[in-house]
Amino acid sequence: MKQKKIILRPYPRGFHIITDHILDQLGDLPELGILHLFLQHTSAGLSINENADSDVRIDLESFFNKIVPENLPFLRHTLEGPDDMPAHVKSSIVGVQLSIPITNHQLALGTWQGIYLCEFRNHGGRRKIIASVYSATT
Amino acid sequence: MKQKKIILRPYPRGFHIITDHILDQLGDLPELGILHLFLQHTSAGLSINENADSDVRIDLESFFNKIVPENLPFLRHTLEGPDDMPAHVKSSIVGVQLSIPITNHQLALGTWQGIYLCEFRNHGGRRKIIASVYSATT
Amino acid sequence: MKQKKIILRPYPRGFHIITDHILDQLGDLPELGILHLFLQHTSAGLSINENADSDVRIDLESFFNKIVPENLPFLRHTLEGPDDMPAHVKSSIVGVQLSIPITNHQLALGTWQGIYLCEFRNHGGRRKIIASVYSATT
Repeated sequence: MKQKKIILRPYPRGFHIITDHILDQLGDLPELGILHLFLQHTSAGLSINENADSDVRIDLESFFNKIVPENLPFLRHTLEGPDDMPAHVKSSIVGVQLSIPITNHQLALGTWQGIYLCEFRNHGGRRKIIASVYSATT
Repeated sequence: MKQKKIILRPYPRGFHIITDHILDQLGDLPELGILHLFLQHTSAGLSINENADSDVRIDLESFFNKIVPENLPFLRHTLEGPDDMPAHVKSSIVGVQLSIPITNHQLALGTWQGIYLCEFRNHGGRRKIIASVYSATT
Repeated sequence: MKQKKIILRPYPRGFHIITDHILDQLGDLPELGILHLFLQHTSAGLSINENADSDVRIDLESFFNKIVPENLPFLRHTLEGPDDMPAHVKSSIVGVQLSIPITNHQLALGTWQGIYLCEFRNHGGRRKIIASVYSATT
């Protein structure tokens, strides 16, 4: 198994496809294995969703804002701004880790699947991912 | 590690237990290991939940429809029907991957746990799962 | 790979940090690897979230109760109490499994990340976790 820390550029709040960036950072993949991605943050997430129509990413942002609204009156953790506590909730909903099979030296993603960084803060800064590549053949 | 592509029959919209079907497709499991399941779709999900009372599956469908309703006015991605964009949202909420420990040649599921296909489209068709079986003993 | 069953003490309903308890149970971690945690229950979950301000855990509980309320009129699975079916829904939202990279004999958690038991029942009792430690170096 190999591990690599990937540092992303700052992304604006929203859902962003990072598949190609991850692949560029990893270099050659093994013939058979698993890629594990782990985001070291509590106010963003990793997900897999549609890689084609960019409206899907906009609608995901709108939907998650509807499901987890800001400024609810019962909140206590408000010192870091109205976007912070909802970002923690969304992070636990979406999760911070992905495992993706590797087949024939490629990620075995479906035709329409891309890897998403879900940036739930207004200004989340540079996010770090630990990528672990397990090879079944070496 | 061994990998196998499992093609499910079309399921209607809703939550469905597929534990036995997955096990049938995999054959003998190793003494000790991990089963990783990856669904190659963006409008369905994989989850683990109650394997006994079928009302739980009906209530899960009702609850997810309440949390992620159709026909919200802010949606842009509507060309594929009112069930499509909510299906993408539900897929990111539930996720498309599971890792389950293997102990003594069996899945180490709890007494009441079953593997679910969560079909979020009205007519999702045949869904594909990449199953990877990691053996710690061979 | 090594596996260990970890039995937690009963926790009250809410979000609880269990990082140190898990680490105590596991003993020495390998130089490089992955920790996989699998909760054998359908009305609780495992998540990763903020390890500092305890108000985050209180707000998570409040938020999940708002997103998945009790006593909705359409529910069928009600015999085990009003907290049961919402607990199943929350379990599928949060998930019951985590994979965390191990680097330099330590969990590669971010600075603010802790492992959470999400107890969604009022009286969930003792929860069981199967911990699998994969070592890339032995």
